[in-house]
Amino acid sequence: MKEIAILGSTGSIGRQALDVIREFPGDLRVAGLSAGRNWPLLLQQIKEFHPRVVAVAGEGEARELKKHLSGTGGPEIFWGEDGLVQVAASSGARVVLTAITGTAGLMPTVAALRKGLSIALANKETLVAAGALVMELARSTGADIFPVDSEHSAIWQCLDGHRENAVNRIMLTASGGPFRREPADLSAVTVEQALAHPNWTMGRKITIDSATLMNKGLEVLEARWLFGVDLDRIEVVIHPQSIIHSMVEFVDGSVLAQMGPPDMRLPIQYALSYPRRWSNRLPRVNWYSLKGLTFEPPDTRRFPCLGLAYAAGRAGGTMPAVLNAANEVAVEAFLNGEIGFTGISRVVEAVMDEHRVVSRPDLEEILFADGWAREKAREIIRR
Amino acid sequence: MKEIAILGSTGSIGRQALDVIREFPGDLRVAGLSAGRNWPLLLQQIKEFHPRVVAVAGEGEARELKKHLSGTGGPEIFWGEDGLVQVAASSGARVVLTAITGTAGLMPTVAALRKGLSIALANKETLVAAGALVMELARSTGADIFPVDSEHSAIWQCLDGHRENAVNRIMLTASGGPFRREPADLSAVTVEQALAHPNWTMGRKITIDSATLMNKGLEVLEARWLFGVDLDRIEVVIHPQSIIHSMVEFVDGSVLAQMGPPDMRLPIQYALSYPRRWSNRLPRVNWYSLKGLTFEPPDTRRFPCLGLAYAAGRAGGTMPAVLNAANEVAVEAFLNGEIGFTGISRVVEAVMDEHRVVSRPDLEEILFADGWAREKAREIIRR
Repeated sequence: MKEIAILGSTGSIGRQALDVIREFPGDLRVAGLSAGRNWPLLLQQIKEFHPRVVAVAGEGEARELKKHLSGTGGPEIFWGEDGLVQVAASSGARVVLTAITGTAGLMPTVAALRKGLSIALANKETLVAAGALVMELARSTGADIFPVDSEHSAIWQCLDGHRENAVNRIMLTASGGPFRREPADLSAVTVEQALAHPNWTMGRKITIDSATLMNKGLEVLEARWLFGVDLDRIEVVIHPQSIIHSMVEFVDGSVLAQMGPPDMRLPIQYALSYPRRWSNRLPRVNWYSLKGLTFEPPDTRRFPCLGLAYAAGRAGGTMPAVLNAANEVAVEAFLNGEIGFTGISRVVEAVMDEHRVVSRPDLEEILFADGWAREKAREIIRR
Repeated sequence: MKEIAILGSTGSIGRQALDVIREFPGDLRVAGLSAGRNWPLLLQQIKEFHPRVVAVAGEGEARELKKHLSGTGGPEIFWGEDGLVQVAASSGARVVLTAITGTAGLMPTVAALRKGLSIALANKETLVAAGALVMELARSTGADIFPVDSEHSAIWQCLDGHRENAVNRIMLTASGGPFRREPADLSAVTVEQALAHPNWTMGRKITIDSATLMNKGLEVLEARWLFGVDLDRIEVVIHPQSIIHSMVEFVDGSVLAQMGPPDMRLPIQYALSYPRRWSNRLPRVNWYSLKGLTFEPPDTRRFPCLGLAYAAGRAGGTMPAVLNAANEVAVEAFLNGEIGFTGISRVVEAVMDEHRVVSRPDLEEILFADGWAREKAREIIRR
């Protein structure tokens, strides 16, 4: 029985993870859950999965939970940043699925890694902002980091059993999002258009990131740390059908690709079942209904966020954290109608231009740079 | 330094294997070579690669070689069936590449396996005709069998590092050959048309087998033994672009595919470099020049040889050997203008209909069934 803690159990990835756990009652058990403000859904999850420890965003939500669970012998209830750390490191879980967004994922991840627990990683900031630090910590405690993103899971599956120095390049596939070719002018696209992703159903923030290709840029920055491969060996390939989830070209020219239907439950399950594979009832690829798998180079002029991500990776230090934080603020501003779609990359670039990189930052310096970038981005948006 | 013996060094696979060995002088060395009648080319190969032991088909060719090599301190020269066994088992090679066609490949392979040497397998008959026996022998001596066929190499690469019981099905891809869709009536196609394969340059026999899909049927029968998977978990998928060389679907629905340009030197190299991968100068897949990768189910009415191969596999015992031997005779008769293209499957089916299967055959019974099938096929063709 593998015990799992889920940080962010009421979000899209968290709920799908519980779908997976529900399918394997003999193999997986929920040890801990955390949510933000959505305590009613968390309450339902507690009643179904019986975790030992749970956490919510604030004292108010914690009080509500306690009221509804009084006398049931329910879980220990925590709140705030400390609550997340409790769920990650003290719930008795062997694997911690980090499915919350933002730098809030950093502290509990570090706490779990310090205890040598495995991380099923669905929080981008962990490696984008603090990759060097987090990988070093994982190495020192022998903790594993299993990717949950479909692209990184694909690469992980392609590399499994193969030697590290055998990789020539990693090809991260991207659907290209809703604006791959149209409209010609991206400055006037609406929030609604940007939220209509062709292949995947995801949260709002990541859907916008898919439309700007920033999502792919962040994945490039994560892949670098996850697989220990130089940035110039990581390429983005547009593959509109989203059947191939990524590919690895080895030094001899052989290419392995991982494919599957666009369903996050598959990579979530693999991160939880690894090193085994479990038979399931998820949809299968129907080869004969496919129209043809195609590949295009990304248009970096149309999607400047991709180039900004590479630039941030090459600058190193605190710059990727700044890229990510500025992007988060800019995407929120776009969703709120404060800036246009093309304003997102402009804001990010302007913030990066003003940042003075701190090399080999510690966690505090990373969080400081993150905060600085958010402030700077808001300032630029208000101008 | 890995020492290699090549059975069939003057054939298509043998020559390409020497191309590979030429590229890695610090890693690979030729210990033994064998040819049939083409002693002049073998002579050139001897002068370039300096094997310890060589073999040719007959005493005449051996005499010619000796004459041309006298006083040069050249290799020991053998001939006939015994010569093949000498090259396979007594050249000092650690890996024996079996690139001769026909049941002539069986005895030397068995000799090499008995000594625990690794086999780089490019001889179909070894597993089609004697799979049970050969795999049992390999297990008992701990010898490895590495596939050289691009499809089997693909599956091997997809499975590497994964657990055996994790496989749901193997999808062997097939180009579909020159007659995938046209002409509607296959009975009148010429030898020249049948030899014009769209993607691969290969020997004449295997090119005809690709046009009838018998080649794919034989590969199904090999895959069963190589990967220990039931026949009903092995499917053939038509993939006209020949970029995906085969795929494995795991029990969780995840699919791994191996891809590469259609160049046999890549799987040959991998069989020789395994478990390492070596950087090379072979062509790479150019993703952006691909038109689109497509998939179709095979048309088993149009290509009855595929169904005959599955039927032979299900009948078991000596039936696959009979299928293969009858097919060899029928293909030769087609190449000689004695029967039409659609006559190939008719001859094979007629021979299979008359065969009484011997279950769990030994090597002698397999060779007897092979001989019987050839005789019977010739008789049917003469009718």
